[in-house]
Amino acid sequence: MTANQPAAPTERTRVRRRPQRGHYDRTTIDAILDAGFVCHVGYVLDGAPVVTPTAYWRSGDHVYWHGSRASRMLSSAAGQSVCLTVTHVDGLVLARSAFHHSLNYRSVMLFGVAEAVEGPDKLAALRDFVAGLYPGRWETLRPVMEKELKVTTVLRVAIEEASAKVRTGPPVDDEPDYALPVWAGVIPLNTVAGAPEPDPRLASGIPAPEGPLHPRLGFKP
Amino acid sequence: MTANQPAAPTERTRVRRRPQRGHYDRTTIDAILDAGFVCHVGYVLDGAPVVTPTAYWRSGDHVYWHGSRASRMLSSAAGQSVCLTVTHVDGLVLARSAFHHSLNYRSVMLFGVAEAVEGPDKLAALRDFVAGLYPGRWETLRPVMEKELKVTTVLRVAIEEASAKVRTGPPVDDEPDYALPVWAGVIPLNTVAGAPEPDPRLASGIPAPEGPLHPRLGFKP
Repeated sequence: MTANQPAAPTERTRVRRRPQRGHYDRTTIDAILDAGFVCHVGYVLDGAPVVTPTAYWRSGDHVYWHGSRASRMLSSAAGQSVCLTVTHVDGLVLARSAFHHSLNYRSVMLFGVAEAVEGPDKLAALRDFVAGLYPGRWETLRPVMEKELKVTTVLRVAIEEASAKVRTGPPVDDEPDYALPVWAGVIPLNTVAGAPEPDPRLASGIPAPEGPLHPRLGFKP
Repeated sequence: MTANQPAAPTERTRVRRRPQRGHYDRTTIDAILDAGFVCHVGYVLDGAPVVTPTAYWRSGDHVYWHGSRASRMLSSAAGQSVCLTVTHVDGLVLARSAFHHSLNYRSVMLFGVAEAVEGPDKLAALRDFVAGLYPGRWETLRPVMEKELKVTTVLRVAIEEASAKVRTGPPVDDEPDYALPVWAGVIPLNTVAGAPEPDPRLASGIPAPEGPLHPRLGFKP
């Protein structure tokens, strides 16, 4: 699967429930990945599933995440099958029956084998992460030290076996229920940024970053 | 582990990375569970991990989720080991070095064997779900039909093996870095509800529900 080309679903990415909500093209998948920064990575540890929330970022045809070399998740994940899932909840869908209540959402499930990123690519990947969330900030920071790189593990998985699932729009009720005197519709949900809270130890005279800090989500602090 | 009693961590719930962020008491765990309604459930399918986003709710000493009887996730999960993870991202933590950037968050990881809820408990569980998100709404809805119950699977897992992980507060920088002229602090993030969007087919004269719809999250539509 390469950017902007539709791909055929595999046995495990094919959206079975509500197949009309399934998408397999990179445009849809990348847009959902690029709209977020926290995913849930699942892996198998001693035969049982473990699901860990972690920050992620996309660069080209891979999704990356990172953490401490000492992390159980990261040491377990390298070379292993993972499922990385990104979910944005866009609204509560209120129907005239309990059964048809739903959520509006955009999600991506990405399957693959986690690969450790080493050498100069590791620093470049971390720069992509910071620069993606905070444009212009990387150059202002105290440079990364060799010992910090050493204790940091960066993993990635190729965007090859992935699917998106999207629900939008109003509730879909049973036809006779539309006559009922029950409010129905969507309560939209959004993530918003509040005013920046300076570190109590911040030296005076350093202005807060001007928004948007995270243009992918439209944060305007 | 029963409500409000601290529990000892197990081998897989013990928070190894940043152990000071780990909590094992039901008060902390329940508060995090009750502040959300979308979780990520991990299970093992043909030896590989699968992570699915789904709505959940807590009732007493169990966390519940539901879906179509035809769902691959739900049919795979009953009787199987699952890991159910709930994550709230509370803020972006900007430090003076890339290495100390972080997120403020509250998360719970819950391990257990998924159990199908049957009989009259199934309807009661679904009522808890709707009533928890939308107080007072259940009684206004067209009643659940037997055939709807039949095609709905409700699963639950006991809150017995669980841990919470919480980060709050400003960045923690290396001591010499505090002197650098770099803005540092927290950008708080919140989920907020927008104005209700009526179903285009809504009959006239039906007022939108008055907020808060979801007191657990403080939504005020």
